Amino acid sequence: MINTLYLPELREMLAAEDTSGLQEFCTALHPGRTAEFMEGLTAEEAWKVLLTTDSGTRTEIFGFLPEEIQTEIVENSDPQQVSELIAEMPPDDRVDLLNQVDPAVVEVTLPLVPTEERRDILRLRAYPEGTAGAVMTTEVAKLSETMSVREALEELGRQAEDLETIYYIYIVDDEDHLRGVVGARQLVQHLGKPQTKLSDLMEHSLVTVEATDDQELVAEKVADFDFLAIPVVDDQNHLVGIITHDDVMDVFREEAEEDAYRAAAVEPLEDSYLQTSILELAWKRGVWLVILFAAALLTAVALSEYEDVIDRVPWLVFFIPLIMSSGGNSGGQSATLIIRALSNKDVTLADTTTIFKRELITGLLLGSGLAILGYATSFLPILDITSTPYELLVVPITLLVIVVFGTFCGAGLPLLFRRIGVDEALMSTPFVTVLIDIGGVIIYMTVAVWMIAELQKVVG
Amino acid sequence: MINTLYLPELREMLAAEDTSGLQEFCTALHPGRTAEFMEGLTAEEAWKVLLTTDSGTRTEIFGFLPEEIQTEIVENSDPQQVSELIAEMPPDDRVDLLNQVDPAVVEVTLPLVPTEERRDILRLRAYPEGTAGAVMTTEVAKLSETMSVREALEELGRQAEDLETIYYIYIVDDEDHLRGVVGARQLVQHLGKPQTKLSDLMEHSLVTVEATDDQELVAEKVADFDFLAIPVVDDQNHLVGIITHDDVMDVFREEAEEDAYRAAAVEPLEDSYLQTSILELAWKRGVWLVILFAAALLTAVALSEYEDVIDRVPWLVFFIPLIMSSGGNSGGQSATLIIRALSNKDVTLADTTTIFKRELITGLLLGSGLAILGYATSFLPILDITSTPYELLVVPITLLVIVVFGTFCGAGLPLLFRRIGVDEALMSTPFVTVLIDIGGVIIYMTVAVWMIAELQKVVG
Repeated sequence: MINTLYLPELREMLAAEDTSGLQEFCTALHPGRTAEFMEGLTAEEAWKVLLTTDSGTRTEIFGFLPEEIQTEIVENSDPQQVSELIAEMPPDDRVDLLNQVDPAVVEVTLPLVPTEERRDILRLRAYPEGTAGAVMTTEVAKLSETMSVREALEELGRQAEDLETIYYIYIVDDEDHLRGVVGARQLVQHLGKPQTKLSDLMEHSLVTVEATDDQELVAEKVADFDFLAIPVVDDQNHLVGIITHDDVMDVFREEAEEDAYRAAAVEPLEDSYLQTSILELAWKRGVWLVILFAAALLTAVALSEYEDVIDRVPWLVFFIPLIMSSGGNSGGQSATLIIRALSNKDVTLADTTTIFKRELITGLLLGSGLAILGYATSFLPILDITSTPYELLVVPITLLVIVVFGTFCGAGLPLLFRRIGVDEALMSTPFVTVLIDIGGVIIYMTVAVWMIAELQKVVG
Repeated sequence: MINTLYLPELREMLAAEDTSGLQEFCTALHPGRTAEFMEGLTAEEAWKVLLTTDSGTRTEIFGFLPEEIQTEIVENSDPQQVSELIAEMPPDDRVDLLNQVDPAVVEVTLPLVPTEERRDILRLRAYPEGTAGAVMTTEVAKLSETMSVREALEELGRQAEDLETIYYIYIVDDEDHLRGVVGARQLVQHLGKPQTKLSDLMEHSLVTVEATDDQELVAEKVADFDFLAIPVVDDQNHLVGIITHDDVMDVFREEAEEDAYRAAAVEPLEDSYLQTSILELAWKRGVWLVILFAAALLTAVALSEYEDVIDRVPWLVFFIPLIMSSGGNSGGQSATLIIRALSNKDVTLADTTTIFKRELITGLLLGSGLAILGYATSFLPILDITSTPYELLVVPITLLVIVVFGTFCGAGLPLLFRRIGVDEALMSTPFVTVLIDIGGVIIYMTVAVWMIAELQKVVG
């Protein structure tokens, strides 16, 4: 959604070099809103607008611009000005940004960034993507346990401008070991007793994460405990950073996105749809299509083995897609239900028996329903099927068996993945479906052979 | 995951009625952690443990217990004690809880809750589920614009205990109209000038939501702006509550969950997998299975129309599942990509032409790849296909056409849904797949008829 409302005015002001007008525009609204109104400007125009305002506001608005505009600005603007912007940005965000930018540009820009910030960037970039260290920010409210409430508030007043959050104040000893936490709320409540020591106020029992922990695990901890932020420590319990609620929200969005792609057998995209090149897109889809194709080949092999059954009762062919899709759909449903339940911790491997019992009953209920529909279907005049009563039972019996089979595969595969230690979210619905298709062909043809044999017994 | 570590000790203390030991257990750790260690206790045992501690700690730990334990406690414990707990709980959480509880129990408990809290509960329950009003809390830091920084801090010190967040302080006029916001950070920074009026500090430009707004829209606003909380107003701009970051996280989880269910053609569950009765589960799946079955019937009808083609080239039947699944998988991929891109606002309806161009090229690339594989397949000895060169072209040509067709359907349907104003996330992958199946049968058989006709021309 592009807010084109202000675009003509912005462009006019740019053309007229109306610095004070643009400056006014930059400061009038919440930076996030301002960034929204700038959508539609080119990166060059956006940067010109931002240069009219003070560096604090500039950095804030910049942080809300779309990623591709941010990257373009960094890559194409004056390196000196860009390095000042980078020095001002929150430590975690600037590392994310630099990871997107052409390495050649980073090489030119980074030496212009002040030493302290540069070191910080290099330190954070050393953590592999997807770890707590890569998501955390190093700007944390850190105070000594010997301080009083008054001293703490004064120190915070000085630091507040630079900190991402002041709502938890972490208490460290002389060697930066994390000792406890004090909430801003507690400080405010002790305004009347300003001599109280932080060590008397602080909470010792702390939930922390290690810098090398997986970001998903971190996000879940923050969400489970309703934290605003969680401290990140190294293996010796030194406080190295914090991860704040907004970063956690981003992690959740990212993970939900990845899960959705995986469920549809697409390798997760790194950029947005339109930014991903067609070749990359084709590759990320093609890999899975080819794997699924190879698996589906087994259905062709299976069917070729039963050529004589098909010869004998040719109308069985009509129902192949219907039967495959019924099995696949019920399997996909079970797989999704169990994957979600596992990831929400609603079920564990200990519930395996319960799950199979529930899925068996559900499968029998759903399968019987579809079997009745399938039986009724054979009498549809449009299909014009003339057959023996035994042959007419093939489709309904197959539907019942395949829905139960699909339900079992769908529920069982995520449990199997979990048991062998593979993330069950990696399992795509098409993967479940193709397995059910292969089984489905065999079930269908076996039932047909069996019914024809029964028929011969009667005739014989 | 059940932390059974402390269970035996807890049970021992309960049996020995060791009140002080249990009290110690309740206060030693973060309430979220304490709740984790209580997993495995029955609702009755958990409540006994909680009754040993003060009502503040009790309410906090209770808030971290699993939903089903919370419900059981409310339904089976002494109504007087429960009503005290409810009065202490955050307004939004207690309303969620009461919505889960047996209405007969609510009728008994509610009259025991103090008048003020009871009114608040009734007011919040009046908002329909899924709206901002139903998610918000009414405990908001609300101050008058005429206050000074010192007065504000003193007032906050008094109120802090009861408030869910003190990090944004909302400024209202005499009639509760929302006028602005002041951050706790700003107050701390102005400790040196305690006479500063809030009206001089406050930010006038505020992003708000209305109580009747959809919760998903609210969650996106909070995430887009990296807010800790967002104020909720009525249609006359009276401040009625706030929605905090943790509620937003819950909304995101809920919505991601619903999308995952819908993508697999399961009506979203209200409770967790194990809590949902098998009949309800069967119903939520069966509705979609029957609809999809009815649609898939058209594939049977289509195939029956082409009986003579199948008679002529019987081995074409072997490839039916393979062709259907290739079309369905590529369509499902496109649908997922476009649904995600639409919901992330990476693309809009204005990009329709670009999307179709990209999907056409991707489809041609993927389709050609599968066509080559499909052609090679006909020479597999295990399939034992003896046929004319024209007939051998049927499968590869169909694969190319059906992958492009699938890609177009998959990308086009979400765009169509969006254009007619229906949420594209309601569209399930099986729905896309069954449409592609129907088209696929027709494409397959048409290509076959065409190739056989070409063959006859040559022979003739």
